[in-house]
Amino acid sequence: MTPRAGCPAIVTLLTDFGASDAYAGVMKGVMLGINPSLAIVDLTQDVRPQDVLQGAFLLGTAWRYFPPGAIHVAVVDPGVGTDRRALLAQGEGHTFLAPDNGLLSFVLRSAFDRPSTGSGRTEEPFAVRHRPLPPGFHAYALTNPHYWLPKVSSTFHGRDVFAPVAAHLSLGAPPEEMGEPVSTVATFLIPQPRWEGGRLVGCVLHVDRFGNIVTNVTAEAVAGLGANPVVEVGGKGIRGLSATYGAGSGLVALTGSHGYLEIALVNGDAARALGVKVGDAVAVRSAT
Amino acid sequence: MTPRAGCPAIVTLLTDFGASDAYAGVMKGVMLGINPSLAIVDLTQDVRPQDVLQGAFLLGTAWRYFPPGAIHVAVVDPGVGTDRRALLAQGEGHTFLAPDNGLLSFVLRSAFDRPSTGSGRTEEPFAVRHRPLPPGFHAYALTNPHYWLPKVSSTFHGRDVFAPVAAHLSLGAPPEEMGEPVSTVATFLIPQPRWEGGRLVGCVLHVDRFGNIVTNVTAEAVAGLGANPVVEVGGKGIRGLSATYGAGSGLVALTGSHGYLEIALVNGDAARALGVKVGDAVAVRSAT
Amino acid sequence: MTPRAGCPAIVTLLTDFGASDAYAGVMKGVMLGINPSLAIVDLTQDVRPQDVLQGAFLLGTAWRYFPPGAIHVAVVDPGVGTDRRALLAQGEGHTFLAPDNGLLSFVLRSAFDRPSTGSGRTEEPFAVRHRPLPPGFHAYALTNPHYWLPKVSSTFHGRDVFAPVAAHLSLGAPPEEMGEPVSTVATFLIPQPRWEGGRLVGCVLHVDRFGNIVTNVTAEAVAGLGANPVVEVGGKGIRGLSATYGAGSGLVALTGSHGYLEIALVNGDAARALGVKVGDAVAVRSAT
Repeated sequence: MTPRAGCPAIVTLLTDFGASDAYAGVMKGVMLGINPSLAIVDLTQDVRPQDVLQGAFLLGTAWRYFPPGAIHVAVVDPGVGTDRRALLAQGEGHTFLAPDNGLLSFVLRSAFDRPSTGSGRTEEPFAVRHRPLPPGFHAYALTNPHYWLPKVSSTFHGRDVFAPVAAHLSLGAPPEEMGEPVSTVATFLIPQPRWEGGRLVGCVLHVDRFGNIVTNVTAEAVAGLGANPVVEVGGKGIRGLSATYGAGSGLVALTGSHGYLEIALVNGDAARALGVKVGDAVAVRSAT
Repeated sequence: MTPRAGCPAIVTLLTDFGASDAYAGVMKGVMLGINPSLAIVDLTQDVRPQDVLQGAFLLGTAWRYFPPGAIHVAVVDPGVGTDRRALLAQGEGHTFLAPDNGLLSFVLRSAFDRPSTGSGRTEEPFAVRHRPLPPGFHAYALTNPHYWLPKVSSTFHGRDVFAPVAAHLSLGAPPEEMGEPVSTVATFLIPQPRWEGGRLVGCVLHVDRFGNIVTNVTAEAVAGLGANPVVEVGGKGIRGLSATYGAGSGLVALTGSHGYLEIALVNGDAARALGVKVGDAVAVRSAT
Repeated sequence: MTPRAGCPAIVTLLTDFGASDAYAGVMKGVMLGINPSLAIVDLTQDVRPQDVLQGAFLLGTAWRYFPPGAIHVAVVDPGVGTDRRALLAQGEGHTFLAPDNGLLSFVLRSAFDRPSTGSGRTEEPFAVRHRPLPPGFHAYALTNPHYWLPKVSSTFHGRDVFAPVAAHLSLGAPPEEMGEPVSTVATFLIPQPRWEGGRLVGCVLHVDRFGNIVTNVTAEAVAGLGANPVVEVGGKGIRGLSATYGAGSGLVALTGSHGYLEIALVNGDAARALGVKVGDAVAVRSAT
């Protein structure tokens, strides 16, 4: 898990601290004080304040593009200082540090991406509860203060706990020294599209800076609906798939860079035009 | 074109991806996966969405401040996935990767900074068309998928094409292996000031974060108008040049850090106060 | 003051240049052109335009988290190009480069954190004037153009003066070659809380991205007011201290990560809800 000889270890940083304070900069200072050779990469500091779900989506769609050995620090932490756990999770050669509040849901989604059917009733979409780790992942609760800053505040564990732990890990400190193993992690129930009378009904997972609407409907599922499917969103119907954002005009449906069905407005902001937000329904059906 | 021994290669990144998504972070992950020693520098990720002209201005006024050998990746790409070309251009020791949509206009401006007179009629200011490369520059269309990610989306060539090509170039891959040579590049017609009855009439090229208004009138041209020129903009006249933003009060005209005439409002936002935007006219005349 | 062998020197950057222009990127280019091995860390580029006090607070609460040897470049510079001095200050193993306008007030606050009583009259809070350096600090005015860019603009000393000086210092250039020693530095009078009839009356120093209100009342001072103090701010009274942002509901008072009394709104923006801004009064008293 340590980086290649001669190459700097990589830490990514995803937070809701914004760019107008120095909170993220301070975390970088703490890490560089422990490992001055670190390469620290901003994933984003502009998650909406306390929007754990948005942070989870961005982290979950980004981490695989980094090389194995990368350490991903994610801090969207409305419960900082309460008894929520702080986590270290590892799998597929990557390490994740985050509060135990759902922020790792999309990283760990292989186990969590469908409604639980064991209990006989369906959970609410986006419900958060503790669920077992998927195969190939293991995790620890960060409980060993030896690797933290000497004085831990109750409001900024990014600086006092997550940053120093990340830096010590980058120098080769063993993950199992950071705290006790845990077998469950808090995750959102990421809703899966379901069939309703010939329509595949999914929902909006994310709206990006351009107003592109990212859904939970995979490109594969859409492909099963024939050459000319109809996408229904925000009271509008879009006929057929476009190859690109730049093709056609008005509202277009296409396979986005995340591999999911997206809805875009050519030269405009689809989410604003449609009044659509995360969680809203999106349906796909075959052309009639 | 490779960096000095022992020093990391430098890649700069200019996009309209914004700070609230992880698109720029993902590009950095792809690059670090290929060359973990890269030094990646943000020029800006906050070009207005799809504003190729703003991106072109910012890139064109920034790149010379980086050391030779730098690789500048610019992605403001409304036509991603269409048949617009992806470019590699090189000149003056620097390498540029960008869609072929005008984004390199200010980098290549030596050839493009005056209305074409060959055809007998004048083009519209900011018109985009293919024009020959200026002397000292050569370019290639990126057509060799060997240097791309294995799976290329139709919506995110920054991640799938530009980032991996930049990283491979930083490791010494030859530019000519990236694709076919091209001799023309899409560029904006960057308007030149013209004389109209004793007044030098230019236009607004850029408005910065402070509301400072950057024009296309060079400091040299203004100097030819005597010690006390009058600048006309947004219906107001400004008499004389100030040495600095902090001298005087109200609206001031001065030579900005880009070497062009700027209009500023002391302790305020000149563009907002004047209701001025990119493309609006700015005139300079001698004091009467 | 030079970094550990084999480790890159660290430069931090705090400006009001914003993320939508390339000014900060250009400064990084200048520095990397002189020292390609530098590790450059953004503290923030989003200080409110020309808000020297906000920049001073952010710098003053961040720098100690970086390792000794770090060079902190701070540019919030409404007086650029006027006769305001450019400074190099050193103390506690850190180096600071900034205009001489109050931006170093919180770095140097040990000497400046109480109203001057020598003259028999009290200064206005946040008044800026030249005051002696505190023990352990020394400073120089940047006057030696040998270490600047060849051509210095009157509007962008960040690029032309501060960036190249920082890079040369990182390579071992002696601070005393940068200019003449100075013994006073412009600083804000950072107001101290005062007793008014049993109430400790302080003020708001900073409002962060979350709307958390940071005051100038230290945790120690609050501790002296008993187990259940009452905090008065924006016309409201808050009884008792919370341990964390996430405990309780509505408005809470707590010790923030900076070590000062903070007021937060659980799941909300306290500063907006209370209509409170920097400089407004905050009082603390014992429970009655």
